[in-house]
Amino acid sequence: MRAVVKENAGMGAVLKDVEMPVLEEGEVLIKIKAAAICGTDQHIYNWNNWAQNNNITLPTILGHECSAEVVEVGPGVKTLEVGDYVACDTHIPCGQCYQCKNGQQHICQNLKLYGVHTNGCFAEYSKIPAVCAVKIPETISPNVGAVLEPLGTAVRSCVEVQASGKNIAVIGCGPIGLMAVNTAKAFGAANIYAIDINEYRLGIAKELGATEVINSSLINSADKLKELTNGVGVDAFIDASGSTAAILDGFKGLRKGGMVALIGLPSRPLEIDLGSQVIFKEATIIGIHGRKMFETWTVMSNLLDKGLLNIDPVITHVLKLEEFEEGFDISQKGIGGKVILVP
Amino acid sequence: MRAVVKENAGMGAVLKDVEMPVLEEGEVLIKIKAAAICGTDQHIYNWNNWAQNNNITLPTILGHECSAEVVEVGPGVKTLEVGDYVACDTHIPCGQCYQCKNGQQHICQNLKLYGVHTNGCFAEYSKIPAVCAVKIPETISPNVGAVLEPLGTAVRSCVEVQASGKNIAVIGCGPIGLMAVNTAKAFGAANIYAIDINEYRLGIAKELGATEVINSSLINSADKLKELTNGVGVDAFIDASGSTAAILDGFKGLRKGGMVALIGLPSRPLEIDLGSQVIFKEATIIGIHGRKMFETWTVMSNLLDKGLLNIDPVITHVLKLEEFEEGFDISQKGIGGKVILVP
Amino acid sequence: MRAVVKENAGMGAVLKDVEMPVLEEGEVLIKIKAAAICGTDQHIYNWNNWAQNNNITLPTILGHECSAEVVEVGPGVKTLEVGDYVACDTHIPCGQCYQCKNGQQHICQNLKLYGVHTNGCFAEYSKIPAVCAVKIPETISPNVGAVLEPLGTAVRSCVEVQASGKNIAVIGCGPIGLMAVNTAKAFGAANIYAIDINEYRLGIAKELGATEVINSSLINSADKLKELTNGVGVDAFIDASGSTAAILDGFKGLRKGGMVALIGLPSRPLEIDLGSQVIFKEATIIGIHGRKMFETWTVMSNLLDKGLLNIDPVITHVLKLEEFEEGFDISQKGIGGKVILVP
Amino acid sequence: MRAVVKENAGMGAVLKDVEMPVLEEGEVLIKIKAAAICGTDQHIYNWNNWAQNNNITLPTILGHECSAEVVEVGPGVKTLEVGDYVACDTHIPCGQCYQCKNGQQHICQNLKLYGVHTNGCFAEYSKIPAVCAVKIPETISPNVGAVLEPLGTAVRSCVEVQASGKNIAVIGCGPIGLMAVNTAKAFGAANIYAIDINEYRLGIAKELGATEVINSSLINSADKLKELTNGVGVDAFIDASGSTAAILDGFKGLRKGGMVALIGLPSRPLEIDLGSQVIFKEATIIGIHGRKMFETWTVMSNLLDKGLLNIDPVITHVLKLEEFEEGFDISQKGIGGKVILVP
Repeated sequence: MRAVVKENAGMGAVLKDVEMPVLEEGEVLIKIKAAAICGTDQHIYNWNNWAQNNNITLPTILGHECSAEVVEVGPGVKTLEVGDYVACDTHIPCGQCYQCKNGQQHICQNLKLYGVHTNGCFAEYSKIPAVCAVKIPETISPNVGAVLEPLGTAVRSCVEVQASGKNIAVIGCGPIGLMAVNTAKAFGAANIYAIDINEYRLGIAKELGATEVINSSLINSADKLKELTNGVGVDAFIDASGSTAAILDGFKGLRKGGMVALIGLPSRPLEIDLGSQVIFKEATIIGIHGRKMFETWTVMSNLLDKGLLNIDPVITHVLKLEEFEEGFDISQKGIGGKVILVP
Repeated sequence: MRAVVKENAGMGAVLKDVEMPVLEEGEVLIKIKAAAICGTDQHIYNWNNWAQNNNITLPTILGHECSAEVVEVGPGVKTLEVGDYVACDTHIPCGQCYQCKNGQQHICQNLKLYGVHTNGCFAEYSKIPAVCAVKIPETISPNVGAVLEPLGTAVRSCVEVQASGKNIAVIGCGPIGLMAVNTAKAFGAANIYAIDINEYRLGIAKELGATEVINSSLINSADKLKELTNGVGVDAFIDASGSTAAILDGFKGLRKGGMVALIGLPSRPLEIDLGSQVIFKEATIIGIHGRKMFETWTVMSNLLDKGLLNIDPVITHVLKLEEFEEGFDISQKGIGGKVILVP
Repeated sequence: MRAVVKENAGMGAVLKDVEMPVLEEGEVLIKIKAAAICGTDQHIYNWNNWAQNNNITLPTILGHECSAEVVEVGPGVKTLEVGDYVACDTHIPCGQCYQCKNGQQHICQNLKLYGVHTNGCFAEYSKIPAVCAVKIPETISPNVGAVLEPLGTAVRSCVEVQASGKNIAVIGCGPIGLMAVNTAKAFGAANIYAIDINEYRLGIAKELGATEVINSSLINSADKLKELTNGVGVDAFIDASGSTAAILDGFKGLRKGGMVALIGLPSRPLEIDLGSQVIFKEATIIGIHGRKMFETWTVMSNLLDKGLLNIDPVITHVLKLEEFEEGFDISQKGIGGKVILVP
Repeated sequence: MRAVVKENAGMGAVLKDVEMPVLEEGEVLIKIKAAAICGTDQHIYNWNNWAQNNNITLPTILGHECSAEVVEVGPGVKTLEVGDYVACDTHIPCGQCYQCKNGQQHICQNLKLYGVHTNGCFAEYSKIPAVCAVKIPETISPNVGAVLEPLGTAVRSCVEVQASGKNIAVIGCGPIGLMAVNTAKAFGAANIYAIDINEYRLGIAKELGATEVINSSLINSADKLKELTNGVGVDAFIDASGSTAAILDGFKGLRKGGMVALIGLPSRPLEIDLGSQVIFKEATIIGIHGRKMFETWTVMSNLLDKGLLNIDPVITHVLKLEEFEEGFDISQKGIGGKVILVP
């Protein structure tokens, strides 16, 4: 089968023929319908510092976001059948640690990541632990199915901040931020303030339901959030930017007693005055490392099945698998849209 | 000023001239913009058993749902000014009991009800404790402002069951049930199953966002809920019917681990098998006696201010104050719509 | 091996030699250290109505509460090893249903019960799905280990009502009620009001930490709860009695805004006025069908390991397996203590 | 009356005769039974940077922690009577802002602090808004009553992290940290790991219920927390140190999915890697600015009334008001105990 393989340290990857995967206990073989490029793939593709320090064994097949069909079921698998339509969760839990035994398998202490610590889905076929292949309704198109992994992260952030009827800021309008904007709209957030430094992304945010967009390269977003909320501050902010400066502005624009959901990974430490920004403010902050398995999937499936989310504007490019280099080029520019690769 | 006065035990009320109210400590005088007839008003108007047993002193001015303008401010009032646009909460908390001191003043142990235990708002003017007059945005029309009291009960039920992305049944499509349907839609509930025995009401439910309507006089609603959810049952149901038979069917159609919000007041005891319907099912049940003061008001104002709720179809009649008898006649028929009285 | 077998419809059971169990996929063989008699065992032993209507296939080995050592591990089991010290959860989840996929496997839609729908633990050896055999610290004695299944139900009720610093009533001082009293004490409940009609049980409740005991056959428990709380009512009650009259008195003694945890299974429907007892009171009610798998086990293990619970007074009799008939006789009298059978 | 007055910028204060306070609307006059020195008093006494930048008007009477008797009731006060035994909350809410209207008056947007922005309680008498004078049971001694303000902060931190049955680290064993240790013990925390750099304080922590004490000047506390929890990390930590280094070690010793309650005010920004310490770990962090008004007071009163807390070892010195200089000297040394001043 054909697959996009990262063979060596250094930039890039190659499309080549590789052996079909052989199933082990608890795994299924899936035929990829559509896959999507994520920032993590880009890190590995570029072989940057992050990639060099994350226990990645080369060569490896790239990719971890996809929709697929189950075509073979390994020994011991009882939850899936050949023909099932699935999307993949990246989190591979061990099933035995404290977290796995206490309802938090998505943050398993021995967590491995599909497509990072295993071969991934930029290929015709892939093998994956059955627990990571989640059945989804046929009403979800393969291209949308390919982005459920990041969408689930966005959905979860809105569940955590209980967005309905509230004033919410979403910082960072890359794909996950845009998806958070749209989910907040679906949940009936009263005001959704989308913040970014890129007008193109802010335009998509507007289209997806932002009631106001704030270009933080032009104006002070903290002041603007205060102004828009009659001096009170927003009820919650979701950070999908990973920018420490933007996160600090988020805290400044947050009301006393407000909530914070952190998704974006800063590349440097955050320097924060806990007294004024967290303690006197009584902020509640929660870190989000992806979807709850599987409460988030249930909510997300329900929403998509009923047409309550509109993810299409986030998917800006659909390419063939062999066009992966063009895909990574587009993705590298970080304009905000998702790039789909179809095998 | 003119007011609708219940003078004597027995059916009916009269419109007559009465003295202007005189403010005491902590009260404000409001000029009524619009008032709405509630089932409780009907009970008092009809002087039924409920009315005879609820410490109501006659004569009394009827009515407790209204929008109004503050025209005079009594001694000690700091939170309101002349000219403020307000809607009224019915709950008059004592401010001193265990509940008032523990964040639950809306269920104050010494709770008195405006318009039941005091003179009410079917009049040109009314006096009300300042704590019960809630400032609302000018973007809310007087007629909608007049129904915020029941709307808040509906909003709260959706907050309690965390409706976003879930499958929700709403039992009983009187005004509060219809408002709950619409709020669930605003919150992004995936499926909203509206249940009633009246096709006219079910039609409004459909218009307000129900994904499916169930006429429980024609089919078994519990079976239907199970069927619509692939045998699982709904994530939650909100009862606004007060019908014990309908509530029992709600429990039967509820999934294991589901939630129940009870609003409607049954006229007879519920006979329920706790083992199968609550304990083995691990149902979580919450009783709702109106709005939290004032978290619910904040969410409701936000939603209305941004046009996220559509309450107009619930308001079926707008009459003049002097047409109150016609209003009670319409309301008595219980077709589902709210009747507004404008002084 | 020897086992207590229910062979036929009708009263009683027999001790006899049976074949050793043969492990299937996902199962482990355990050597029983100690087992405990539960009300459910009594139902089956007596072959009452409940037993006749619960899909029980005869012959079957009785018993589902035990501590044990793993002596053989079946195919596909990764979480246990020979030599592990375990206690058994009765709930056998299917792993595939809505509840299992949404963090509620203990109320699996296809739930089977170990020792009811399978052979049980009143025997020298038993086989059990690995998911139901929970490793416990060596600091927990085998006799205490044998009662973790009911103890977990009691622990969970105190977690659900967040007992710390509150005024809590525990209705019914059978084994689970007594365990709830002791757990509430461990959690720092301010006042623990234990209610029963049996002075012997109430005596044990006092020993286990009840601040006040109420014999509801002598005085009105609802009035007493009000009196003891300055007219406010208790913050929460836990029902472990299954008596509908006692549950109703619990609601009457509950404060506005209070919480209710229901464990005991009434043998008849509860007739309750929802208006006064649930809706105006804004009671929050939760049904509890045993332990969360495995959050409750973690908390319970922690508490026992540090000596924060004192369950010994609840264990009133320790017999040999062959003395099971005496055990059932004692248990039938329902005095409140647990009877242990040691193979 | 006599009072400790801060007259001028610069070190120190003086005891002098001042006029009796004159009550305004909503205030009560209290006769101080006992007062306690807090770090904030020390800041003002020393006139350090913090004091110079907090809108403090001189001259002012120092002190904000006290127990007292109500001796006069101002106009409009309905909740208190002459003779009531009270302790004081420092938070003076405006009653009108978003937070005050949404159940969070303790973090009022226009919050003023009694004894900082008003005259305080190191005096024979003081006047205070009625809302800040909380009735307490006579079973609480005046000296303990004088430290309910900081104790409430400690109690709240244990409520927020739901300490029962969990493994909890308490960082910083000053008075609030010690009180948190004792509250965690009362709540049935399984393990309480107390961390400080001072052996004397750690000794008191041990006395108050710490299962293990860690001197972080001698060993790496993060490593030790991991070791003590079998590599998992603690379920939660409470920071009462305000040391950024200690807080970072707390995060390192926290389990995935753990909770953090922040009380201590760092004097410099915290530099934290959000990815590894918050996001991948899915930490939930909450800032705590004192007691909820009045849920925390209810829980605290209940606990103290039943003897479930032991605060005596935290009160290390009881002096006369005129010995205030000695009191500030002792307090300045920061050994951990509270200093009481009795007028």
